[in-house]
Amino acid sequence: MSSLPTNIVIREVGLRDGLQSVQTILPTERKIEWIGDAHAAGLREIEVGSFVPAHLLPQLADTAELVSYAKTLPGLFVSVLVPNVKGAERAVASGADLMLVPLSASREHSLANLRKTPDEVIAEIARMRALRDAAGSKTLIEGGISTAFGGTIQGHVAQSDVLRCVQALLDAGADRISIADTVGYAGPGAVRELFEKARALAGERFWCGHFHDTRGLALTNVYAALESGVTRFDASLAGIGGCPHAPGASGNASSEDLAFMLAEMGIETGIDLSALLALRAKVAAWLKGEALHGALGLAGLPKNFGALAAQATTM
Amino acid sequence: MSSLPTNIVIREVGLRDGLQSVQTILPTERKIEWIGDAHAAGLREIEVGSFVPAHLLPQLADTAELVSYAKTLPGLFVSVLVPNVKGAERAVASGADLMLVPLSASREHSLANLRKTPDEVIAEIARMRALRDAAGSKTLIEGGISTAFGGTIQGHVAQSDVLRCVQALLDAGADRISIADTVGYAGPGAVRELFEKARALAGERFWCGHFHDTRGLALTNVYAALESGVTRFDASLAGIGGCPHAPGASGNASSEDLAFMLAEMGIETGIDLSALLALRAKVAAWLKGEALHGALGLAGLPKNFGALAAQATTM
Repeated sequence: MSSLPTNIVIREVGLRDGLQSVQTILPTERKIEWIGDAHAAGLREIEVGSFVPAHLLPQLADTAELVSYAKTLPGLFVSVLVPNVKGAERAVASGADLMLVPLSASREHSLANLRKTPDEVIAEIARMRALRDAAGSKTLIEGGISTAFGGTIQGHVAQSDVLRCVQALLDAGADRISIADTVGYAGPGAVRELFEKARALAGERFWCGHFHDTRGLALTNVYAALESGVTRFDASLAGIGGCPHAPGASGNASSEDLAFMLAEMGIETGIDLSALLALRAKVAAWLKGEALHGALGLAGLPKNFGALAAQATTM
Repeated sequence: MSSLPTNIVIREVGLRDGLQSVQTILPTERKIEWIGDAHAAGLREIEVGSFVPAHLLPQLADTAELVSYAKTLPGLFVSVLVPNVKGAERAVASGADLMLVPLSASREHSLANLRKTPDEVIAEIARMRALRDAAGSKTLIEGGISTAFGGTIQGHVAQSDVLRCVQALLDAGADRISIADTVGYAGPGAVRELFEKARALAGERFWCGHFHDTRGLALTNVYAALESGVTRFDASLAGIGGCPHAPGASGNASSEDLAFMLAEMGIETGIDLSALLALRAKVAAWLKGEALHGALGLAGLPKNFGALAAQATTM
């Protein structure tokens, strides 16, 4: 493994990808506590919610308020998800640093979920870019390519379909690209190949990888992606969220397990693992009865792990 | 990643490492069915049991009978665990192909678990080698270095302690060496370093890696070890066994998840994934109420996965 990055950003998506998938509606003051504690634990990028109609996802109806709070925290880069131009208008008005627009690489999945083809979503992203620029806003636009390794409707998704989306997103004016394994179809072989090719196409604009642990490979897939030069990965505290199509299977890459893996490798994330585990315990109590994931929350850190990590960084 | 192996052997250890950790005592005829089905699914190495006194592990008391049966299956390489010279005598008499002798790299763990220092175990392995050779037996002797990345008693274990054990085992006449992360302390950073150094020391005699999923990194650790040239990994069906010190945390690397990961990477294991998942379901029913692990048993294979894999191998 020739060149591993020295720093990785973990983008916490539990407040969006996680909370939209659970039954519990977390009160705004608890979400604010979550964001504050995550920031205090060293996280510097958080996806705080989604600008979708409140009747569709009532649990995320407080997104504008969360952006306002999160923007008061020093050095915190605040993301939101937006599904369409209307959402983009709200994201720009909120002052979020980045809006993530999901786009399914699978035509069938895109039609079933969004009732739009991938090309129609890309055309909408061009309109978002125009409105963002006209508003003089600095909110970045990220095209997030979902089901990039396959999906439950069509099965396998061809690499060429994903790369076509990458290029079309760049052409439409997306500032950032991310690639997501929405239903846990990816393995390290496909990840290495696709991430290298996407990176060659998009360079620094290939911004983030997003893996689900449906088949136990979320962390391995991150590891396999590290060589591509991508330095940002989504994860959610306690692995909440993820794949509703595989009951009992685990959800997103868990933030605490990912932070532990990277710390073990000597890769800097800025995260205080003990503080993150304390936050995990708090969120787990708030989400009692929901399916939680992640191994570190059960097993804890290895004995003396923190001391060793501190020793390693001073050597 | 310069050179990945084209073939990997998954050694099934569920019948030993798994069954010794669960409450259920599986009848011999079911173990025989398990071994037969595993062989039919393409597995070619199985650790069938342990030659320990029956009053200590009554659930493994039928090991000699299992070796006899397993040796009737064409091409099956049959391993057993032995803790001491007495066990080695029984292993030689049984006609097993290999006997694994565990040895803790942690002096404290070794004293607590075996009431012997690592050096005393190594001296015993030299006596096993002498008795094996005197008997004209072909049963290979594998020194299995456990807690190689740390343990719950002393915490971190130094790489130099493990490498010293590797050399001492080779000097004592061990035919094979394996390295085990007994309580899930390893991460891919430490695995890459230690496996490369152990391989440099032991060459082809560095035979096998054994990872527990206590902190969610078993598969990532296998992936990280693939570059070292080691081509054999222990795993247990449904991940049974593993770490009794972390209740609720998962156990061994699960055979089916590991086989899936390697298949996705185009690495040949000889395993029919559907047949292995059918066996997993059968064993899960036999072990009802026990803690089972592994993601594939819940999520199943991705849609069209088999077809794609078949396509890839004919391309």
